[in-house]
Amino acid sequence: MFSKILVANRGEIAVRIIRSLRELGIKSVAIYSTADRESLHVQLADEAVCVGGPKPQDSYLNIKNILSAAVGTGAEAIHPGFGFLSENADFAQMCQACGLVWIGPKPETINLMGNKEHAREQMIKSGVPVIPGSNDFIQNPQAAEQEAERIGYPVLLKAAAGGGGKGIRRIERRSEVASAFTEAQNEARVSFGDDRMYLEKIMENCKHIEMQIFRDNQGHCVYFPERDCSLQRNRQKVLEESPCQLITPAERAKLGEIATKAANAVDYRNTGTIEFLMDQQHHFYFMEMNTRIQVEHTITEMVTGVDLVKAQIKVAAGEALPFQQADLLPHGAAIECRINAEDPAHNFMPSIGTIDYLYLPVGNLGMRMDTALYQGMKISPFYDSMIAKLVAHGNDRHEAIIKMQRLLDELVISGVETNQQFHQDLLHDPVFASEKYTTTYLEDSFLPSWKEEHDETLPTEKYAD
Amino acid sequence: MFSKILVANRGEIAVRIIRSLRELGIKSVAIYSTADRESLHVQLADEAVCVGGPKPQDSYLNIKNILSAAVGTGAEAIHPGFGFLSENADFAQMCQACGLVWIGPKPETINLMGNKEHAREQMIKSGVPVIPGSNDFIQNPQAAEQEAERIGYPVLLKAAAGGGGKGIRRIERRSEVASAFTEAQNEARVSFGDDRMYLEKIMENCKHIEMQIFRDNQGHCVYFPERDCSLQRNRQKVLEESPCQLITPAERAKLGEIATKAANAVDYRNTGTIEFLMDQQHHFYFMEMNTRIQVEHTITEMVTGVDLVKAQIKVAAGEALPFQQADLLPHGAAIECRINAEDPAHNFMPSIGTIDYLYLPVGNLGMRMDTALYQGMKISPFYDSMIAKLVAHGNDRHEAIIKMQRLLDELVISGVETNQQFHQDLLHDPVFASEKYTTTYLEDSFLPSWKEEHDETLPTEKYAD
Repeated sequence: MFSKILVANRGEIAVRIIRSLRELGIKSVAIYSTADRESLHVQLADEAVCVGGPKPQDSYLNIKNILSAAVGTGAEAIHPGFGFLSENADFAQMCQACGLVWIGPKPETINLMGNKEHAREQMIKSGVPVIPGSNDFIQNPQAAEQEAERIGYPVLLKAAAGGGGKGIRRIERRSEVASAFTEAQNEARVSFGDDRMYLEKIMENCKHIEMQIFRDNQGHCVYFPERDCSLQRNRQKVLEESPCQLITPAERAKLGEIATKAANAVDYRNTGTIEFLMDQQHHFYFMEMNTRIQVEHTITEMVTGVDLVKAQIKVAAGEALPFQQADLLPHGAAIECRINAEDPAHNFMPSIGTIDYLYLPVGNLGMRMDTALYQGMKISPFYDSMIAKLVAHGNDRHEAIIKMQRLLDELVISGVETNQQFHQDLLHDPVFASEKYTTTYLEDSFLPSWKEEHDETLPTEKYAD
Repeated sequence: MFSKILVANRGEIAVRIIRSLRELGIKSVAIYSTADRESLHVQLADEAVCVGGPKPQDSYLNIKNILSAAVGTGAEAIHPGFGFLSENADFAQMCQACGLVWIGPKPETINLMGNKEHAREQMIKSGVPVIPGSNDFIQNPQAAEQEAERIGYPVLLKAAAGGGGKGIRRIERRSEVASAFTEAQNEARVSFGDDRMYLEKIMENCKHIEMQIFRDNQGHCVYFPERDCSLQRNRQKVLEESPCQLITPAERAKLGEIATKAANAVDYRNTGTIEFLMDQQHHFYFMEMNTRIQVEHTITEMVTGVDLVKAQIKVAAGEALPFQQADLLPHGAAIECRINAEDPAHNFMPSIGTIDYLYLPVGNLGMRMDTALYQGMKISPFYDSMIAKLVAHGNDRHEAIIKMQRLLDELVISGVETNQQFHQDLLHDPVFASEKYTTTYLEDSFLPSWKEEHDETLPTEKYAD
C-alpha cells in the first residue's frame, strides 16, 4: 500500500479524498493556488504545496509544477479527482514516466474514451448499443436520404469537423434531407475546409442513466446501481439520484452486463462511469465514458455503503476489488443536490463573497454533505461555482426526498447567493415526484415557468397609478 | 397517524425528534425554558411554548405547564425523549388522562421497571438471569454466612433502606461476615430505623452490555444488536459502541431471546433497553431496564439503518413494527463519543460560554453528529453538559475507530472546554483497541494514568533552579 499520495485537485473533492487517505493511514499532499492558501483541503492535508497562481492553467492545470510537487514530497501516487487534469491522458502518462502511480485507468484508455468517434467504434465492436447514426461519412443527398430512413427521424446532420453550430441541421422528414444536406455541406466546406458529413439519430424523451463500474488489475469487474442524472442545465447536472425507480432489477442487471462488457473490452482499470441515454422503451444507448471518479459518486456510496475513493486507492495499489457484485444491491434511495454559489434569479450568475454564517444540519440518519466550506471562507471567482453536495438517503425515494426538503430548509449558507431555494422548488415539482423527467425537462419545461415567477432580470409590466 | 406531537425535552434529543417528526409530516411542538429561548429545538419546531424558568423543576419537569402546552396547541401525543420526565409514570398516566398518547410503554410498566426490587422479582419470574443475591432479607450472621457461600465471594452486604454509603459492606471471605453483618445492621438501624439486610454478588471484570428491544401493540417483539457501554465515569456513559466484537452471533441471539422474554413478560410497548452485566465467561445478568429511548440509540441506528424515533411514533400510533428480526443484523460497527462541555484537566468541571467558532466535519461516508449546537449559541449552566454526540460508522470496528479519530481531529468547538481530546486519548488506548475493557476500566485504570499527565489540579513538583 502507498504511504503518501498527492491529490491533484481542490475544493470538496480534494477534501473528500484527503479524508479517505487519512482513514487508510496514507499521508496526503495537497496542491493549491495562491487563491486557495486558506482552503480547507490545504488545512486538512499532511503537506501542501503551492503550485501557482489563481488561474487554473497556472496551478491546477500546471502539469510541470504538480509533478514537481509529487516528486519533491515523495508521493507515490496521484489522485486526480474530477475536472482539471483527471481526464488528461498525457498527464497520466507523465505521472507514470515519473514513477508515480496514476489512480485511474491506463492513459491509452483515457485517450480512447476521450475521443467520441473512437469510443463509439470500440463500443460497436464490443456489442454495446450506441446512438443510431451513419457509420461512414455520407457522400451525397441520396445516401443521406437512405441513411436517415434507416436510422429513423428526427435526425441530426453534422459536419465531422463541426463546431459553433456550423454545418449542422435538424431534419424532421424526408422532404427536408436534400436541401439540408447541400446547405450544411457547403457551410462545412466554407467554415472548416472539410465537408465530411454524418447523421445521428436525435434521441428525444430520454433519461440520462449512468452506470459506474469498477475493475481491478486482475480483471474482475463489478457494476453499481445506476444513477439518474437527467436533471441538467447547460449540460451540467443539477440533481442526481440513485437508483432510478423506473428501472427494474432485471433491466439493471442487463445494463450492468452491458457496462461490464464495455469495461472488459478496453481492459479498463479502476473506476469509471458509462453514460447512457434511456428511451421510453427502456432501450439504452452508449453516450460516453468518464474515466475518473464523478461528482455524484456520493449517492452511489450512500446506497451501497462502499467508499469508492478508498477502493480506487486499493485497486490502484494492485489489490483485488474489496467487494463483490452481490454486495452492491441498492439499499434505499439517495439524492444529491449540487449547491452552487450562483443566483438563479439572475440567470444563475456566479456569486462570490465571504461565508459569513454557516449552519450545517448534521444529525439523524441519512444525511451527508461534502463540502470545503467553513465559516469565514472566501468564495473566489476563479473556480467552479459548486460549493457543496448535499446528499439525503432514505429507505425509499419518498423518504429521501422528504429528508432533502428538510435539509434544504435547515441549511444556512450566508454571504453568497446559492441555488438552495431553486432545489427546494424542484423537489416540490410533480414531474420530479414521478421521476418521469427526461434530459430536456429542466431546461425546456421546469425552468421557463420557474423563471416567470422568480427571474428578476425579466421585464416586468409597469402600471401607472 | 398523528398530526401534531409535543416534544417534552430540549437540546440535541429534542432536535433529533423534531427532525423525524418533520420527515413523517407531523407538526412538532417544542417546549422551552426562558434560558432556551434561542435554542435550536425552538427554531426548528413548528410551534414552541415557554413552560417556565431555567431550572428544570420550573420548566422541563413542570408537568402542569407541559400538559397545558400539549392540550393548548392541540397536540395528540407526547414524546418525552430521555431524562427529565421520560421515566415518570405519573406524567405518562396524566398524559393519557388528558387524552394524549404517551410515546413509550404503559405507565405500570414504567413503574414496575423503575422499582429495582420489583423489576428483579419480575425478571426472576420470567426466567431472566439476575445478579445473584439473597432473595429474602437476612436475619442473622449465620444466615449471612450461608447465603454468602451460596452466592460466592466477594459479596456486597446492603441495607434495604440504604443510601449515602451507610449500612453497606464489601465482604471478601467467610471470616469477615459475622462482624460485618453486626456492624452494618447496627448502622442501618441507627441511620434509617430499618435494619433489614440483604446480600448481592459483587460482579467484577464485567462489561455493561445492553440490548434494545422494540415491541408493538400487537405483541410482536424484536431486538437490536447489543451495545457495549462499559466505558463510564461517575456512572455516566462516555463512549458507546455497537456491536460488541467479543460477542458471537450465537451469544447475540441468546441474549436477544432473553431480552424478548423479559419484554413479553411485562407486555412491554414501544422501545426500551435492557441493561446486562456480562462476565468473563459471557454470562449475562439483568441490571435494569430503561423504559425510553436512550442517548446512544444513534449507534444502533447506524448499524441497522432503522430510524428508532420514527418507529416509536408509528408503533405508538398503533402500527405494526416497520421491520422484522431478520432486518436487524448489525452492518459494520459504530461508535459514539459523548461530547461534553467540561474540562477534563480540571476534574471534568462543567464549562459554560458562547460557541464562538464551530467547524463540523460533515462529508464522506459514516459520519453523524447529533447536536443542538450552532455558532453563537450560549451554553447555559442549567442543563446537562452533553452538547453533542459524535458518531462514526465503518465497515468494521477498526474503520469506525479510525474514522472517529479523524472526526475528533477535525471537529472544532470553540468558546467552551470540551472532552474532545480526552476521547482522542481514549481512542488511542491499547485496551480500548482490544475492546477488553470492563465497567471499571475507565475510572480505575485509564483515568488515573491520564490524570497524571493531564490533570492541572494535581500538585506538581517544583524544582529549584
